[in-house]
Amino acid sequence: MNYSIIRYIIGWVLNFEACFMVVPCVTAVIYGEREGLAFAAVMVACLVLGMLLIARKPKNHTFYLKEGFVTVSLSWLVLSLMGALPFVLNGDIPSYTDAMFEIISGFTTTGSSILTEVEGLARCSLMWRSFTHWVGGMGVLVFILAVLPMAGGSNMNLMKAESPGPQVGKLVPKVRRTAMILYGMYVFITAVQIVLLLVSGMPLFDTLTITFGTAGTGGFAVLNDSCASYTSVQQVIITVFMILFGINFNAYYFLFIKKWKQFLKCEEMRWYLIIIGVATAIITVNTVGMFSSAAEALRHAAFQVGSIITTTGYVTTNYDLWPPLSRGILVTLMFIGACAGSTGGGIKVSRIVILAKTIRKELQSLVHPRSIEKIKFEGHPVEHETLRSINVFLITYLMIFTASVLIVSLDGFDLVTNFTAVATTLNNVGPGLEVVGATGNFSAFSALSKYVLMFDMLAGRLEIFPVLLCFYPRTWKKF
Amino acid sequence: MNYSIIRYIIGWVLNFEACFMVVPCVTAVIYGEREGLAFAAVMVACLVLGMLLIARKPKNHTFYLKEGFVTVSLSWLVLSLMGALPFVLNGDIPSYTDAMFEIISGFTTTGSSILTEVEGLARCSLMWRSFTHWVGGMGVLVFILAVLPMAGGSNMNLMKAESPGPQVGKLVPKVRRTAMILYGMYVFITAVQIVLLLVSGMPLFDTLTITFGTAGTGGFAVLNDSCASYTSVQQVIITVFMILFGINFNAYYFLFIKKWKQFLKCEEMRWYLIIIGVATAIITVNTVGMFSSAAEALRHAAFQVGSIITTTGYVTTNYDLWPPLSRGILVTLMFIGACAGSTGGGIKVSRIVILAKTIRKELQSLVHPRSIEKIKFEGHPVEHETLRSINVFLITYLMIFTASVLIVSLDGFDLVTNFTAVATTLNNVGPGLEVVGATGNFSAFSALSKYVLMFDMLAGRLEIFPVLLCFYPRTWKKF
Repeated sequence: MNYSIIRYIIGWVLNFEACFMVVPCVTAVIYGEREGLAFAAVMVACLVLGMLLIARKPKNHTFYLKEGFVTVSLSWLVLSLMGALPFVLNGDIPSYTDAMFEIISGFTTTGSSILTEVEGLARCSLMWRSFTHWVGGMGVLVFILAVLPMAGGSNMNLMKAESPGPQVGKLVPKVRRTAMILYGMYVFITAVQIVLLLVSGMPLFDTLTITFGTAGTGGFAVLNDSCASYTSVQQVIITVFMILFGINFNAYYFLFIKKWKQFLKCEEMRWYLIIIGVATAIITVNTVGMFSSAAEALRHAAFQVGSIITTTGYVTTNYDLWPPLSRGILVTLMFIGACAGSTGGGIKVSRIVILAKTIRKELQSLVHPRSIEKIKFEGHPVEHETLRSINVFLITYLMIFTASVLIVSLDGFDLVTNFTAVATTLNNVGPGLEVVGATGNFSAFSALSKYVLMFDMLAGRLEIFPVLLCFYPRTWKKF
Repeated sequence: MNYSIIRYIIGWVLNFEACFMVVPCVTAVIYGEREGLAFAAVMVACLVLGMLLIARKPKNHTFYLKEGFVTVSLSWLVLSLMGALPFVLNGDIPSYTDAMFEIISGFTTTGSSILTEVEGLARCSLMWRSFTHWVGGMGVLVFILAVLPMAGGSNMNLMKAESPGPQVGKLVPKVRRTAMILYGMYVFITAVQIVLLLVSGMPLFDTLTITFGTAGTGGFAVLNDSCASYTSVQQVIITVFMILFGINFNAYYFLFIKKWKQFLKCEEMRWYLIIIGVATAIITVNTVGMFSSAAEALRHAAFQVGSIITTTGYVTTNYDLWPPLSRGILVTLMFIGACAGSTGGGIKVSRIVILAKTIRKELQSLVHPRSIEKIKFEGHPVEHETLRSINVFLITYLMIFTASVLIVSLDGFDLVTNFTAVATTLNNVGPGLEVVGATGNFSAFSALSKYVLMFDMLAGRLEIFPVLLCFYPRTWKKF
């Protein structure tokens, strides 16, 4: 294990976190909030600590997948440990455990909250919460790769560890340039949403925070009722952009380089849109009696479906009151998740599609045992190694899921609460059902359950193995 | 597709079903029940139909895996279609859909019931319900293989389709002899349980029906409260035998040929017993306050754990009132299921253990990318093909599970009911939670849901692909 390079990168992560904290500091200045001092203090602390860690350059730049995974996990942990401090210092979230829960939920773009009243928070704290979504959405290490020139082949291993999906490819040969293109597109779509929401008449503060939450598919809102009190037009804009941010950014790259045909051919995107369409249609029919018109039912159905499948977690209506079929579909969408290579969480549409194709292939090979047809995805045969890693991902995912539900059950809540609390955190969605439903929150859980759910949020965002590797004793051996 | 041999085997299945119906007929004679006439009538019908189907011998004896799978599925369907008739004819279950549900639940050793009052049924009907458990437990085709000399290499493909577990091996080189040994051991252990229960003072009728349900890991009882009113000693006997019938019969073969060392080394059996021990311990501690003594809590915990992990489904107490952790553990055990090669259902301990080992291997290969260690199970390296088939089984299982829950949701029951109704049928357990809990039943579901659950029971018992293959259009093509 090359400890010195891990230290060095974490140093940079802290420096960048200091930069990120400029955002809440500026917010505090604008609104004249004393709570902003906490952010300034922690900013300085991050900078001092970061500078100390990068003072000595690492001798050795070799960097394997193992180091990449561990670095990413530790970076996210350090980001959260420091990012939670201002809430405690300025009194907005007095308990450090709760503050950690809230900020891990922010960085992992989950959006699950322990707050009963978000409107009671200082504006700078709300802005920080939402801004962590934006940072965490595309990834912190990817951001650093885009900005910071780093020597060695280490870059790809960092990107692999942080980017979601079964196959992490480079858009262009250089990792750094790939990261820049990704962040460029991310900034651009974010900017478009900001403009549209401002034009629709949303106040600037709400526009920024809601857009950060949409872009990162996070879900922290600034009103107690999430997005219920925004106008229909604003809700539609948010719906469209949630769905846009759930699409594989590779697809946007095809648009960017004007390869329209390849854009339209993106198989994962098409399945993703089909699932959204079908789910929205069924829920609209299923809930139409609960709304004043079919159009209203459609709007709420599309918003909730878009919010849940992209694992954003905004709500416009208390879907906990919907019929079991609609709630069942929402829970299913939590697991499916968005496209690989997007800012969304969950198992990812590409994994689900590839897995579904293995069933078809199995039937085929039972009928024709000598057939050697390969599974194809996005027009290419799926490598054996990819298939294997998807399978092991699914298994590990299920086991972590089951263990988490059992531990959380100790708190004595009903089974639906336990099940959906884990589902919504492991998939980085935000709200679940019952106690943690659209109008509920996570404050009632014990500290043990909160730590389990924090683990699940990190494991979900980093796709399990980077986090799990930190708990594997052999990882830390010298040889 | 070799249709003539499929017809021929189904003919024999019908003849054997006629023989099985001797059991309820004799029961009816003993208790002087008029309801027995229905069984006599259907017995004759089975015999006539069966004789017609076997009248012409098949020209071609070649028989591939595809034919094996389809034959087994169709056999089980035909068994159920005919087996349900007596209930309708004698008025014990007037609806044919309900009768089908009940008898599929019987043959698949599920034990889920649509009856609100089992004590209202005729004794011959109760005996038939329980006897189908015993027949379905070890498998109908395996029984026919043991009794009927059949030419060609067809036997192994039939056995593969009907026997549960990721790897179906022969105990001895000849399939027929293997089937005879399996049924021999099955009859022997069944006989021991009958003797013990009789000695404990249980009436003969209860002894036979409860033993058939235990041996097949079925779960149909003859009292409304299942096993709650039997004495502690009787409950302990049932607990022990449920657990014994959940063990891989290969292990008993080692005992049979006096290879004690190999018996003790059986990895799956050891994991299975460890899981039972741990689950029982946790539930005992978790529920100790609900019983008058720790010993009573232990007895109920062990009974319920043994009943659920072996997918039997007998109950001695209303575990739906237990704390969420205990209920969560029971639901988890439903999915784990018993050992492969036993009469139990579920995913099977061996699959779970092998899957868990792939996680360890993945971590290992992340730390040491060049390591080529193979996963070992029962002392042998696990073949790539086995691993692949376990993975595809798990995926198909999950997708059928999800689709079933969504369709069943249409009935409007709560999510826990929908989830556990599917879990308990797909895993061939019997009872679930809430509406279908320890004291509930499946009568309230719509016909659509009942058919979905019937499909799940058959898919669960035959391990999915034999059933799924019947719905795959290419299966039925000539070439």
